[in-house]
Amino acid sequence: MRAILVSEPGGPEVLQWREVPDPRPGPGEVLIDVTAAGLNRADLMQRQGIYPPPPGASEILGMECSGVITEVGEDVEGFSPGDEVCALLAGGGYAEKVAVPWEQVLRVPEGVSTRDAAVLPEVACTVWSNVFMTARLRRGETLLVHGGASGIGTFAIQLAKALGSRVVVTAGTAEKAARCVELGADEAINYREEDFAEKVRADVVLDIMGAKYLEKNVSVLNTGGRLVVIGLQGGTKGELNLGALLGKRGSIHATALRGRPVAEKGAIVRGVDQNVWPLVGAGAVRPVVHATVPMAEAARAHQMLESGEHIGKVLLTR
Amino acid sequence: MRAILVSEPGGPEVLQWREVPDPRPGPGEVLIDVTAAGLNRADLMQRQGIYPPPPGASEILGMECSGVITEVGEDVEGFSPGDEVCALLAGGGYAEKVAVPWEQVLRVPEGVSTRDAAVLPEVACTVWSNVFMTARLRRGETLLVHGGASGIGTFAIQLAKALGSRVVVTAGTAEKAARCVELGADEAINYREEDFAEKVRADVVLDIMGAKYLEKNVSVLNTGGRLVVIGLQGGTKGELNLGALLGKRGSIHATALRGRPVAEKGAIVRGVDQNVWPLVGAGAVRPVVHATVPMAEAARAHQMLESGEHIGKVLLTR
Repeated sequence: MRAILVSEPGGPEVLQWREVPDPRPGPGEVLIDVTAAGLNRADLMQRQGIYPPPPGASEILGMECSGVITEVGEDVEGFSPGDEVCALLAGGGYAEKVAVPWEQVLRVPEGVSTRDAAVLPEVACTVWSNVFMTARLRRGETLLVHGGASGIGTFAIQLAKALGSRVVVTAGTAEKAARCVELGADEAINYREEDFAEKVRADVVLDIMGAKYLEKNVSVLNTGGRLVVIGLQGGTKGELNLGALLGKRGSIHATALRGRPVAEKGAIVRGVDQNVWPLVGAGAVRPVVHATVPMAEAARAHQMLESGEHIGKVLLTR
Repeated sequence: MRAILVSEPGGPEVLQWREVPDPRPGPGEVLIDVTAAGLNRADLMQRQGIYPPPPGASEILGMECSGVITEVGEDVEGFSPGDEVCALLAGGGYAEKVAVPWEQVLRVPEGVSTRDAAVLPEVACTVWSNVFMTARLRRGETLLVHGGASGIGTFAIQLAKALGSRVVVTAGTAEKAARCVELGADEAINYREEDFAEKVRADVVLDIMGAKYLEKNVSVLNTGGRLVVIGLQGGTKGELNLGALLGKRGSIHATALRGRPVAEKGAIVRGVDQNVWPLVGAGAVRPVVHATVPMAEAARAHQMLESGEHIGKVLLTR
């Protein structure tokens, strides 16, 4: 098969579409004939050599895909050849075929094309696990999402609104802010023009900036508030005022999906299947696809994500 | 009645045993004829003027007591005059009588004297709520407790061992370390001689030092580890390495009991009644009383706590 590999750490030009051995499904794995793969910011970091794949994972880029199952290994439950699915991957999505533990596989939800379903696993599992399983956002509470126009942001807005919360987002342009409001955000703050910490109080903050926003994120928490850090785009080390956090009885959680054991990923995927997929099927939560790029031109898709001008997700197709 | 009041912020000498109006039980409150009151570090801070009582709470010191109910207000459930009880208070424990919402009251557990029960509410509610409700310490996991010889420490050791965890503590003298091991600790680290961060890895850390230990506490966490900060004896502002926390999928919680609404305190007290009291009744968890001092001599009891030489709790009696 053909797949995208990284010739050496570097810019988008190091991505090579080339022939590699076909993957084989091991025990508990299904083999997917890939229709499309979603891009994630972590892919850019892996390409640059600063986010190596976890031990045992494919060297091929790509943390999610969609397609059709062509083979099932031993001990696979609930999937058969011919099933149209999407999957959360530890790697290997930018390829014509990928093998993945069945626990990380989801059926394509109602009303979504197999192609577009490729952009759902990462955002659905990230938002469900962090905002709902970890931070336990409740109906009527306020969620603040940084980077509201990102893939994760656009999904978080829709899911939190569908589940009865108030949603405030930050975004870097008026166009992005407007799109977030279209998607359901109650308020969108252009962080280049206004200080979010002066405008909002939140019960849960979903953060991608890390150190740069740490002090302000703690300052906006309500009593009992929860800050969940899932990205470190603004650095890793910041000052934490434990007195402020204690006064609010707040908590800070920092997590990533990729390195978790299959069992934990499986629990998240089951949660998504039971709680999120019905909302996608009902049309309350939709995939937001910014652009579709042929897989062989992955370099162009990476440039698009790096420019930061996209709204929602970028998709690679066969 | 007589009670201990603070004439002005200052040292132990500002504590005055004097005549004040009797409290009356409001709706939902019981009136307790106080047998004894437990001392807490927060009392010293309140005396110094740096930890004012929450709005509406008594100006009289004392966050826990034991005694006999003499009167019940309207809408009190499950308690009657004559009941021997202990209670979590927002204030008012250093007194001959105190009125308290019935939700914060517990029966004196089996096998414990009414007097000694006065040292249980704060430590039981603090350890149960933080280590078990918030951090969800599980059987087989390792708990690190800083200040193992403190009131909270001596209780945390016993409760976590009784519930099947491994317990490591820090302490400041060889005598304290030895007493922690007698109480059940698997390992006691003298922090004046050894660096705990080089000796232990933990799933849950119960911390009272705040900023001073923040970096080391994060460094000792296992994957999925939880740091719970309930004291700031080592300062409030410290550097947090979010990259390290994210790599471990860890969390930091900072909480205090006193300012919580009655309903939240009530939920904690019910949890203690159901989960902790049976272990006290069975003798698996015992009150650790360092010294008993007459209430009129509260100044001497404060000096004792300030010296830091105590092991367990100091008790004030009528």
